[in-house]
Amino acid sequence: MAIKVGVLGAQGRVGQAVVQGVEAAEDLELSAALDREDDLQALVDSGTEVIVDFTTPNSVMDNLEFCIRNGIHCVVGTTGFDSERLDQVRQWCQDSEANVLIAPNFAISAVLTMSFARQAARFFESAEVVEYHHPNKLDAPSGTAIHTAEGIAQARREAGLGAQPDATEQSLEGARGANVDGVAVHAVRMTGMVAHEEVIFGTQGQSLSIRQDSYDRTSFVPGVLIGVRQVAQHDGLTVGLDHYLDI
Amino acid sequence: MAIKVGVLGAQGRVGQAVVQGVEAAEDLELSAALDREDDLQALVDSGTEVIVDFTTPNSVMDNLEFCIRNGIHCVVGTTGFDSERLDQVRQWCQDSEANVLIAPNFAISAVLTMSFARQAARFFESAEVVEYHHPNKLDAPSGTAIHTAEGIAQARREAGLGAQPDATEQSLEGARGANVDGVAVHAVRMTGMVAHEEVIFGTQGQSLSIRQDSYDRTSFVPGVLIGVRQVAQHDGLTVGLDHYLDI
Amino acid sequence: MAIKVGVLGAQGRVGQAVVQGVEAAEDLELSAALDREDDLQALVDSGTEVIVDFTTPNSVMDNLEFCIRNGIHCVVGTTGFDSERLDQVRQWCQDSEANVLIAPNFAISAVLTMSFARQAARFFESAEVVEYHHPNKLDAPSGTAIHTAEGIAQARREAGLGAQPDATEQSLEGARGANVDGVAVHAVRMTGMVAHEEVIFGTQGQSLSIRQDSYDRTSFVPGVLIGVRQVAQHDGLTVGLDHYLDI
Amino acid sequence: MAIKVGVLGAQGRVGQAVVQGVEAAEDLELSAALDREDDLQALVDSGTEVIVDFTTPNSVMDNLEFCIRNGIHCVVGTTGFDSERLDQVRQWCQDSEANVLIAPNFAISAVLTMSFARQAARFFESAEVVEYHHPNKLDAPSGTAIHTAEGIAQARREAGLGAQPDATEQSLEGARGANVDGVAVHAVRMTGMVAHEEVIFGTQGQSLSIRQDSYDRTSFVPGVLIGVRQVAQHDGLTVGLDHYLDI
Repeated sequence: MAIKVGVLGAQGRVGQAVVQGVEAAEDLELSAALDREDDLQALVDSGTEVIVDFTTPNSVMDNLEFCIRNGIHCVVGTTGFDSERLDQVRQWCQDSEANVLIAPNFAISAVLTMSFARQAARFFESAEVVEYHHPNKLDAPSGTAIHTAEGIAQARREAGLGAQPDATEQSLEGARGANVDGVAVHAVRMTGMVAHEEVIFGTQGQSLSIRQDSYDRTSFVPGVLIGVRQVAQHDGLTVGLDHYLDI
Repeated sequence: MAIKVGVLGAQGRVGQAVVQGVEAAEDLELSAALDREDDLQALVDSGTEVIVDFTTPNSVMDNLEFCIRNGIHCVVGTTGFDSERLDQVRQWCQDSEANVLIAPNFAISAVLTMSFARQAARFFESAEVVEYHHPNKLDAPSGTAIHTAEGIAQARREAGLGAQPDATEQSLEGARGANVDGVAVHAVRMTGMVAHEEVIFGTQGQSLSIRQDSYDRTSFVPGVLIGVRQVAQHDGLTVGLDHYLDI
Repeated sequence: MAIKVGVLGAQGRVGQAVVQGVEAAEDLELSAALDREDDLQALVDSGTEVIVDFTTPNSVMDNLEFCIRNGIHCVVGTTGFDSERLDQVRQWCQDSEANVLIAPNFAISAVLTMSFARQAARFFESAEVVEYHHPNKLDAPSGTAIHTAEGIAQARREAGLGAQPDATEQSLEGARGANVDGVAVHAVRMTGMVAHEEVIFGTQGQSLSIRQDSYDRTSFVPGVLIGVRQVAQHDGLTVGLDHYLDI
Repeated sequence: MAIKVGVLGAQGRVGQAVVQGVEAAEDLELSAALDREDDLQALVDSGTEVIVDFTTPNSVMDNLEFCIRNGIHCVVGTTGFDSERLDQVRQWCQDSEANVLIAPNFAISAVLTMSFARQAARFFESAEVVEYHHPNKLDAPSGTAIHTAEGIAQARREAGLGAQPDATEQSLEGARGANVDGVAVHAVRMTGMVAHEEVIFGTQGQSLSIRQDSYDRTSFVPGVLIGVRQVAQHDGLTVGLDHYLDI
């Protein structure tokens, strides 16, 4: 039996890609595709089992309250969740069979890169992150790269590794990158590129590189579908797709 | 207290690198460096706790029997272990407090590449392996690349993934690589290169690459030292360094 | 003064990207955007100096005859030019001030990769090509990769280099790639990827890699604009964008 | 007829690699291998046609004066040449048939990377350099990377390109690398790595990467042999191997 999936924000560029992804998957059925003017009651009427929400910080809380109260699982890519909002969602979940996944990043290749980087970190003396994005990006380095570096730094600390070896005495300012918790992070800005991240580890006689390339704006879809398929098996609120990957 | 480490085959090129690695590690102490003419009794006399054996198929079994009977843990990179030899070692271990690690590959970056490849495989429609070696190598693809591809293929089967998408109708012979259990493997032979392996995964709008580069012949040393440090905590015989990595 | 540019096939996906490229360039002015129903006379009436033709083999010859006779330069990405058609165009050019550029590939990064590969080839013992495309591609390897390998092979012959070193004795079928004139070419097919080519050269202690990544279907636009800007300076018919690059 | 080659500094690590390279080349003959105690007259007596000098700033000028006066061509990797020394060498060459090549970098892959970077620069909106070295290196970025960036910057200026696109508003210090003449340069320091440089260019929908990897300390040998073979055809003093490459 296919899982019945409702998409909220179905008219947006992201929502449209989710709709196409659901329609292309044999084990999923699109039961509802709603946008801001539509009545959420259509989710209940159509027997929707899981909703995907890529809407706005303004509307997402009302959407979640409605769905959780009606026993509909939620997979959420909408931004703007602080600890207060997460507590509210957690509370709603306590009185419901419905589960919720909220994730800042659904690109499966990026989520795996972060996970593998944390696993690998304790085996290497050196670790740096190089990220590549289009030149219209406002922040450098990317949030994902910073988060990756923090994960590496934490794994190094837990393994008792000290500072990375670096004999640099003479340096042009900025050459050695940004220092994120002892891990150097370099940001390249390049017309034509989309979003790419490489984590590099080195130890005696060898290096290990884990690289993620996003080629277009639909790269979040496979991760959303993983969320849709597994949300029923993860009780309550989960934050971060990595908790669903079983690695 | 430093762990007392004996090296067998200490005069060989590989053994010399192990000796240097042990001497450079603060938590290890070189208690004995023996080669083929030396008496193994020196291991007992020196209070050796762990030996590293990079000798030959001819001498390794005698070395292991002696060490295991004397309660000395063994980390073994010598080749030529078939199931009969492994059974013999397992039997010796039953009557001893000594543990044994036998591994075909101690390059930590290569071991992690294989492990991450198996973890990632089920999340991607496509997976291929490209390996790069110096042109004096006799086999193509490398044993490591074949082993990696088999691990990917098994993970795909367990996840219920079918054949990889490939619309190729018109092809020059060999262009699509060797077919290892449904995973394409490509072997590049290049003067100047040493040993390099890249595993590439693709799904909607993105790819993930895990790449391992060995720059010189001492790249096995960090993996051997991991083995030395942890062999006391893994009862009996273990085959493969990945079982020590806790990932 | 901006160059007045007319686009033929302006409604097609490719033509639309050209129209946008012309409009975004300060030194170019879109003087006409025609599709199959439109009268070519509009080119003359608008004072068009250069046309860009991404139409069909059926209509391109009529377009070229009209433009050349009216002294309008032509930049052509339409396919299907055999030696007979090229001769015809060359003949039309003899009686006209108009010049023509016909190119099979306008992706500037791909054209440069081929050019640099030919320049580098004679300095290296080893050379191989690895290309990566989406899995819907029908041919393997790509025409560009074959063309690149042929250019490398020719440069090696001219430099008196012999066969590449390769000690492979034991091989899985296909592992060493397709043999294009003595140069191994490997084709990877990967969901999510677009079009990517890497040329790798090796000699003692080092390697050189030249890699081209196309991230989307508009990657031909910069090359077309180079053609538009320079076609007035290259007399008669030119085949291949590389002749315009002055390298 | 093989070219008769003398090596000065033949006992040094670099000199030894040159000796081996000469001996392995069929078109070259090792006529003399001298070190600091040896008499230069042996070069004349052995009929040496070309010398290779990897000695010290202290001894190189005496070596060159002797060789040039005796009509022996010189290929020089020794450091420490300022404009005064170069003028002196140029003057010696005026009264001799002997030619001299002095080059700061003989790694052919690095020299080609710089050359291709200069050629490609004018076709791309974006260009950055990422270099990777072992962590014992004292300077960051490497001299080669700075030199590469300067070449790119000059080519951009000559082509009338303006500043690179970069919308970064919010940045961690150092994330965007060192600014070398408007080109961002990033330096990675990684245990296990040797010396690697990547130049990346981007324009609409595509990127071009030129990457050089040095795997061991003998990577200068092929470039030295090119110098030896061609020095007789380049009159007077030449500074930089690129002038011999005919590209």
